[in-house]
Amino acid sequence: MPKEHTDLSKLCIHTITTKPWNIEEAAKKFSAVGVKGITVWRNALEEKNIKETGKILRAHDLTIVSLCRGGFFPNKDPNKRQEAIDDNRRAIEEAHELGASMVVLVCGADTTQSLEESRKQIHDGIATILPHAADAGIKLAIEPLHPMYADTRSAINTLAQANDMAEVLNSQWVGVAVDVYHLWWDPNLEKEIKRCGKSNNLFAFHICDWKTPTTDMLNDRGLMGEGCIPIKKIRSWVGDAGFNGFNEVEIFSNAYWKEDQDIFLKKIIEAYQKHS
Amino acid sequence: MPKEHTDLSKLCIHTITTKPWNIEEAAKKFSAVGVKGITVWRNALEEKNIKETGKILRAHDLTIVSLCRGGFFPNKDPNKRQEAIDDNRRAIEEAHELGASMVVLVCGADTTQSLEESRKQIHDGIATILPHAADAGIKLAIEPLHPMYADTRSAINTLAQANDMAEVLNSQWVGVAVDVYHLWWDPNLEKEIKRCGKSNNLFAFHICDWKTPTTDMLNDRGLMGEGCIPIKKIRSWVGDAGFNGFNEVEIFSNAYWKEDQDIFLKKIIEAYQKHS
Repeated sequence: MPKEHTDLSKLCIHTITTKPWNIEEAAKKFSAVGVKGITVWRNALEEKNIKETGKILRAHDLTIVSLCRGGFFPNKDPNKRQEAIDDNRRAIEEAHELGASMVVLVCGADTTQSLEESRKQIHDGIATILPHAADAGIKLAIEPLHPMYADTRSAINTLAQANDMAEVLNSQWVGVAVDVYHLWWDPNLEKEIKRCGKSNNLFAFHICDWKTPTTDMLNDRGLMGEGCIPIKKIRSWVGDAGFNGFNEVEIFSNAYWKEDQDIFLKKIIEAYQKHS
Repeated sequence: MPKEHTDLSKLCIHTITTKPWNIEEAAKKFSAVGVKGITVWRNALEEKNIKETGKILRAHDLTIVSLCRGGFFPNKDPNKRQEAIDDNRRAIEEAHELGASMVVLVCGADTTQSLEESRKQIHDGIATILPHAADAGIKLAIEPLHPMYADTRSAINTLAQANDMAEVLNSQWVGVAVDVYHLWWDPNLEKEIKRCGKSNNLFAFHICDWKTPTTDMLNDRGLMGEGCIPIKKIRSWVGDAGFNGFNEVEIFSNAYWKEDQDIFLKKIIEAYQKHS
C-alpha cells in the first residue's frame, strides 16, 4: 500500500466536482484549505477572460493540472467531425491561455456507426490536432471511459485500448488518463498501468468511488471510501509506474452538488486523506 | 452477415422477458406464435411441480434451453459461500427435473473483498458443484456480465475471463454464455468468441439491445434494433465459431413489462426477424 497522504500538496480538484461554485470561488475555497491543484472544466470558463482566470488561479497558488475536455471526435457526418477538430483546436488554445499543460480527451462515440469506425475516427482526430498541441506545448490525455459509456461518450473503454492508441500515435504530447471509476473492474489494469508508465504515457490520475447501488449512470459518483474501488491499491500501481503527479478528485454527483459545498469540500479532504 | 431468420426454429425467449405471464401462459403464447425454445427463470418455478412444468413446456413443443440462474458464489463469509453452493446444487437438481440441459451462472461479487478474491471464490464454487452437474448431465454456462455489474453481480466481466475460467476448469460440463448486452463494447469480442468456439465452450447466445439513453442500469434493455449493438455481426461471429443453438431473447424492461404482453411478443418476433 502507498504512504498515507500527509499533506494536500498532490491534491487536485476538478471544478465540476464543486459545480455550484464559480471558478473564482472554487479557487479561493480550494486554496484556503491547502489544495494545490485545480483541473478546469470548460463550462467554468464561459464568458471569462481565460488569461485573467489563469492568473487568478495561480495567484491562489494553484497548479492548473488539466483542461477538461476535448475529444468527441467520431461522427458519421464529416462536417461534424470537422467541427470536433475545430473545437479541439480551441480547447488547446484555451489550455494554453489558461496556463494548463494538458487537455483531457473524452474521445466520443457515434451509435450510428460501428465502434471500430469510431475508434478509427478518434485516432485520426487526435493525429489531426496533434501538431497544434505540440506547437502550443499542450499534452493530450486519452481517457478510457467505462464500457457503460460506449454508446455515446467513448469507444475507448479500456486502458489497453488507450495505451494502444497512444503508442501508435507515438508522440511525447499524447498519453493516457487513468480514472479509477472507469477502470477499476478491469483484470488487466495493473499490467496496463505498468505499460503506460514504461512508455512515459501515464499523464493523469483521477479518483472517486463506485457506489452500490449506483442510481444514476453519470451523476452518482461517490467520495473516496464510499464505494468498492480499491483506490489505494490502484494508486500504488500508478506510483510504482513512476507517476508523481496530482491525484485529481473528479466527482459528478447530483447528491453532493445539492449539499453545502463548504461541507462537501471538507468531506473531500477527509476522504482524500483516509481513503486514497 | 448471417442469413436472415426465415423461421422461429432457433428463437428462445426467457420467461423473465415476459415477466407478467406465468410460465404456463408464457409456454402457451410462445408456442402459439411458433417460438421453439424457452429459458426458465427460477422465480417462474416457485410453488410449481417442476417435473410437471417440464412436461407442460415439452407438450407445447418447446425445448427447455436453460435454467436461469445459478452462481453468486463470492462472499467474505464462508457460511454464505456454503449456502451458495447448496443453492447451486438445488439449481442443478431443478434443471434436471425440468428437463433443461444447462444452468446459466451469474457468478456474483462481494464489495467487501477484492475482485481477485471474488474470482477465486467463483472458480472454487464452480469446481465444487461440477461433479454434481456432471452426474446430473447438466452443463454450466459462465456468463460474463457488463463491467457496470462488477460491484455486486459478477466479478467476471469479459469473455476472456469467462474463457480463462472455463479452460482452467477443463470439463465438458463447463462453458460460457455470450450475451450481447454485456459484451458488445469489448474490442476483443470477436477473438474471444472464436476462442470459446474452438474449445467447445460456447454454450449459449443471448440477445437484446443497448438503448441510448439507458435510464435504468438493470431494467431498461431494448428490443433488438432499438439500440446500438451490432447483433447480426455478433451472431455471425458466434455462427462462424460453430454455434448452432438457440438465439435467446433476454430483456429486462420496466417499460415492456408494463405493456400488453401479447403486443410485446409480436414486437419480439418482428425484432428477431429484422434485427438479429
